[in-house]
Amino acid sequence: MSQSTEAQFSVNLRVRLDNVPGVLGRLATAVGDAGGNIFAIEGFVAKGPILERNIVVNCSGVDHQREVLAAAEAVEGVSVLEHHDRTFRMHEGGKIEVLPLFPVGDRDDLSMAYTPGVARVCKAIAADPRLADTHTIRKNTVAIVSDGTAVLGLGDIGPKAAMPVMEGKALLFKEFGDVDAFPICLDVAGPDELIETVVRLAPTFGGINLEDIAAPGAFEVETELKGRLDIPVFHDDQHGTAVVALAGLENALKLVDKKMDEVTIVVTGLGAAGIAVGKMLLEAGAGRIIGLDRAGVVYEGRDNLNPAKQWFAENTNQDRRKGSVGDVIGGADVFLGLSGPGLLTVDDVKAMAADPIVFAMANPDPEILPEQVEGLVAVMATGRSDYPNQINNVLAFPGIFRGALDARASDITEGMKLAAALAIAESVPQDELAPDFIVPSVFDKSVAVRVAEAVHQAAEADGVSRR
Amino acid sequence: MSQSTEAQFSVNLRVRLDNVPGVLGRLATAVGDAGGNIFAIEGFVAKGPILERNIVVNCSGVDHQREVLAAAEAVEGVSVLEHHDRTFRMHEGGKIEVLPLFPVGDRDDLSMAYTPGVARVCKAIAADPRLADTHTIRKNTVAIVSDGTAVLGLGDIGPKAAMPVMEGKALLFKEFGDVDAFPICLDVAGPDELIETVVRLAPTFGGINLEDIAAPGAFEVETELKGRLDIPVFHDDQHGTAVVALAGLENALKLVDKKMDEVTIVVTGLGAAGIAVGKMLLEAGAGRIIGLDRAGVVYEGRDNLNPAKQWFAENTNQDRRKGSVGDVIGGADVFLGLSGPGLLTVDDVKAMAADPIVFAMANPDPEILPEQVEGLVAVMATGRSDYPNQINNVLAFPGIFRGALDARASDITEGMKLAAALAIAESVPQDELAPDFIVPSVFDKSVAVRVAEAVHQAAEADGVSRR
Repeated sequence: MSQSTEAQFSVNLRVRLDNVPGVLGRLATAVGDAGGNIFAIEGFVAKGPILERNIVVNCSGVDHQREVLAAAEAVEGVSVLEHHDRTFRMHEGGKIEVLPLFPVGDRDDLSMAYTPGVARVCKAIAADPRLADTHTIRKNTVAIVSDGTAVLGLGDIGPKAAMPVMEGKALLFKEFGDVDAFPICLDVAGPDELIETVVRLAPTFGGINLEDIAAPGAFEVETELKGRLDIPVFHDDQHGTAVVALAGLENALKLVDKKMDEVTIVVTGLGAAGIAVGKMLLEAGAGRIIGLDRAGVVYEGRDNLNPAKQWFAENTNQDRRKGSVGDVIGGADVFLGLSGPGLLTVDDVKAMAADPIVFAMANPDPEILPEQVEGLVAVMATGRSDYPNQINNVLAFPGIFRGALDARASDITEGMKLAAALAIAESVPQDELAPDFIVPSVFDKSVAVRVAEAVHQAAEADGVSRR
Repeated sequence: MSQSTEAQFSVNLRVRLDNVPGVLGRLATAVGDAGGNIFAIEGFVAKGPILERNIVVNCSGVDHQREVLAAAEAVEGVSVLEHHDRTFRMHEGGKIEVLPLFPVGDRDDLSMAYTPGVARVCKAIAADPRLADTHTIRKNTVAIVSDGTAVLGLGDIGPKAAMPVMEGKALLFKEFGDVDAFPICLDVAGPDELIETVVRLAPTFGGINLEDIAAPGAFEVETELKGRLDIPVFHDDQHGTAVVALAGLENALKLVDKKMDEVTIVVTGLGAAGIAVGKMLLEAGAGRIIGLDRAGVVYEGRDNLNPAKQWFAENTNQDRRKGSVGDVIGGADVFLGLSGPGLLTVDDVKAMAADPIVFAMANPDPEILPEQVEGLVAVMATGRSDYPNQINNVLAFPGIFRGALDARASDITEGMKLAAALAIAESVPQDELAPDFIVPSVFDKSVAVRVAEAVHQAAEADGVSRR
């Protein structure tokens, strides 16, 4: 009962109360005694012998939901008419819909939007395919493509089970970037089929956001699609995270007055995100990077390196250091964790250089918890919403695609990603920059606008804009 | 200038007028003299020395638009500030958007719709994939799939150029059936790749509407997908047309007091739609059907029959009649044209049995024009919106998918299509049934509701409902 309650485990109870003094109080007490956190009660006016209302209670898990329900049902003068898990209810019927951009109210509308007038637009596109970029949904529509092989931290749960994540992403694309995004979850066997299918789908979309695809296949999928398609292709698990981590790091370095090209950065976890973070750090001018996978430090000549890690080995760790986190963390200025819980110890942090910066981004359990290193670190960030400095790629992808679509970009370049990172960093007013405020709030809608503008300009500068 | 003007060729003129008496009159006269039909003028109040306003003029074609523009520009005291083709303007940026079904306004919302709460729903679907049918967009979402090989009457114009048609269809799905539909235009080489790609896409969708795919490949695509997928698959060019044609024919037969099993029906055009019409007629109990392709009457033993026509030959034309339309039309009760202009002559109609029924459904130019046979036919229908009795599959597909999704149907059966046809026929109040009112208006939104209900019931009856 001492576990923290969360909205994701909230239940809605529809209760009938006898309208006599004390019943509501007994109900609230019973729910509270069961550890439930009453989050909302529907307004009411007490009239008649009974009252019916909805009560939302945050719980700590599914078992706890049952306990809270039982506690409510046991209160004299209270009956629970209906109850539901709010997260599941929110998902019923899916989270997005497809709407007309204008009504079709009469024959004239129909004759322009559909037959016979639509044939005029079809013929025009057949004659000049570039018109598809302006006169179809390609202008503003991105596919969120997954094969369901690495969904969140759940692993290979398949394309159907991946749908809720992709729908959620579509919702965020629209909410923050005004980008129309549509989930495309594919039943494919491996990267080759995935690549082939996306190439076939490309006439429909103005951009491809790859999502939750297992490494190392994901690298091949992105590289190949970037080469074969003339629309932006972006693997968000890699680059979204890298862009936001870089933004946070740029601001953290300002706070401790260190320079990117002078610091030593230790990165744990060299999956899709870790490799991408390393690449972006190099692009941003980082001098000394040491990366580790499950087998320890990655260095040129080590065994068991996939092509991505081989590239990483060749471009980082110039001194060919070896060993574990403990062997290389001493004197490091920055720790970037994209691995798992427990991978950084308090002693590790104590061994770091003065004013250490720790981004423990493993989700949901970070490499080390903020409360463990309070007072020991200069800046601490995680991937979680319940601590300050959340490194959340919601800050990146809506604005990046908004900018790429606005530029009608043929690609998303390194320059566009760097520009996005800087725009996110600059979204924190520099006079408000503080150890607990190095990245803007995910609900700050001005961020995507700034990112889009910067990305659009970078697309022009890099020669990939087709406006 | 005597050609008819149409909304599909309408232009919007933004004009500046000197505010002196007579200018508006001169402009209207000039536009009229050029054959333009002023459809709308923006309201205004005459203040100040000049007026600016928008005028919509229907024209008969693109050249005519230019003539009207030139005529307007030549009027003294008038300058045309801007002008645009309204059909193209309507298509700018596409015709549909993807919207969240609820706002994500704070961390609690985000934690339920996206991480971490979304993982609970993903895990539940991984454990029980049927949950994807209720807790993702699969519940209400259909893919409108085309390879762009037979778009309207334009032929193989490719997937990009097919997009405006599929978007228009998506718009109609939502408007009339409250079905979320998304265009999927695929760059594939032939039916096998198309089938393979749709199978890979199936985890995302609750139904597949095939559209504008060239015959005979389209038959294979539909048959194969119906066999391999456990969601409704429906080739609208075939069955949508067949359902509405049958609905119209049922009502037409009532008017002439003839029975389906007694009449002789001649069908011209045995592409996707023609074959499907033949099949539905047989399902509906039609006794005597004679079908013709470009090579003439189809009969058992004829050369050059693809599998679909072979099936048709084996199941119709029991007397093995041969020849052209003129050879078989004598004494026929019904003509159903799905072919091309000029395929039925006035003499052919005169040779038909008493009270002939003629459905000349070729688009945009029917087999014979209504004005050619006025007084000679009992009932006349076309595919066009500018004559009575438009056989338009907008009357069928929104309700059919609505009903199939409501039933969570695994298939669309012959029974469901027949039920749809009857529901459409019955949407014309029987006391209003008349030679110029055998099918309801495409804007009658109650039709899809009736069709959905009937289709849902038929799905239950046929054992394909999974509710």
